[in-house]
Amino acid sequence: MAIQRVGMVIGVREDRISDYRALHADAHPGVRDLLAAAGIRNFSIFIERLPDGALYLFGYYEYNGSDYEADMTRLDAQPRNQEWIAMTAPMQIPFPGQKGWKIMEEVYHNS
Amino acid sequence: MAIQRVGMVIGVREDRISDYRALHADAHPGVRDLLAAAGIRNFSIFIERLPDGALYLFGYYEYNGSDYEADMTRLDAQPRNQEWIAMTAPMQIPFPGQKGWKIMEEVYHNS
Repeated sequence: MAIQRVGMVIGVREDRISDYRALHADAHPGVRDLLAAAGIRNFSIFIERLPDGALYLFGYYEYNGSDYEADMTRLDAQPRNQEWIAMTAPMQIPFPGQKGWKIMEEVYHNS
Repeated sequence: MAIQRVGMVIGVREDRISDYRALHADAHPGVRDLLAAAGIRNFSIFIERLPDGALYLFGYYEYNGSDYEADMTRLDAQPRNQEWIAMTAPMQIPFPGQKGWKIMEEVYHNS
């Protein structure tokens, strides 16, 4: 099964950025184990202020399981993941019409 | 030597987006071989329209060589890479004060 690459973007609240950083620091366990168990690997999040003056987060990960929908459904149902989302969602500013991260279109890949 | 992850962002011109897509299509050789020779691996570019109404490109790659500065200097000096930049740079809209892609800060990584 080919690895599936996912790129995504979401806004982040200026007044919650230090909380966001603390939750995502290397030392914080977060839900790292649940993500890995769901086949989500090599997951990075970057932050940048764009020319519109707002702060955005850009996520990249690779899914290397065999049933993405099933793995995501199982992950969503985990109480610890739900607690994590309850903490992090209020720090984020989804794009209009989105509930969470907006998945981006890949226009290039070179292995 | 640890792999170095790089996330970056730049604007893209609406009127050049089809040209940009054509140059970056899987079938186009571009400078794929030069990037690989410079230690740049697993390079993806994503596109997304942000809430400010503008189109942006988000790049992600992994450098797995042993001397990043030297490899980038050698890459920059390649005539074919210079021709590539001469074609693609006019399609892009760098952030204020930037000459090319803006490197983003990584706030999270889970292997």
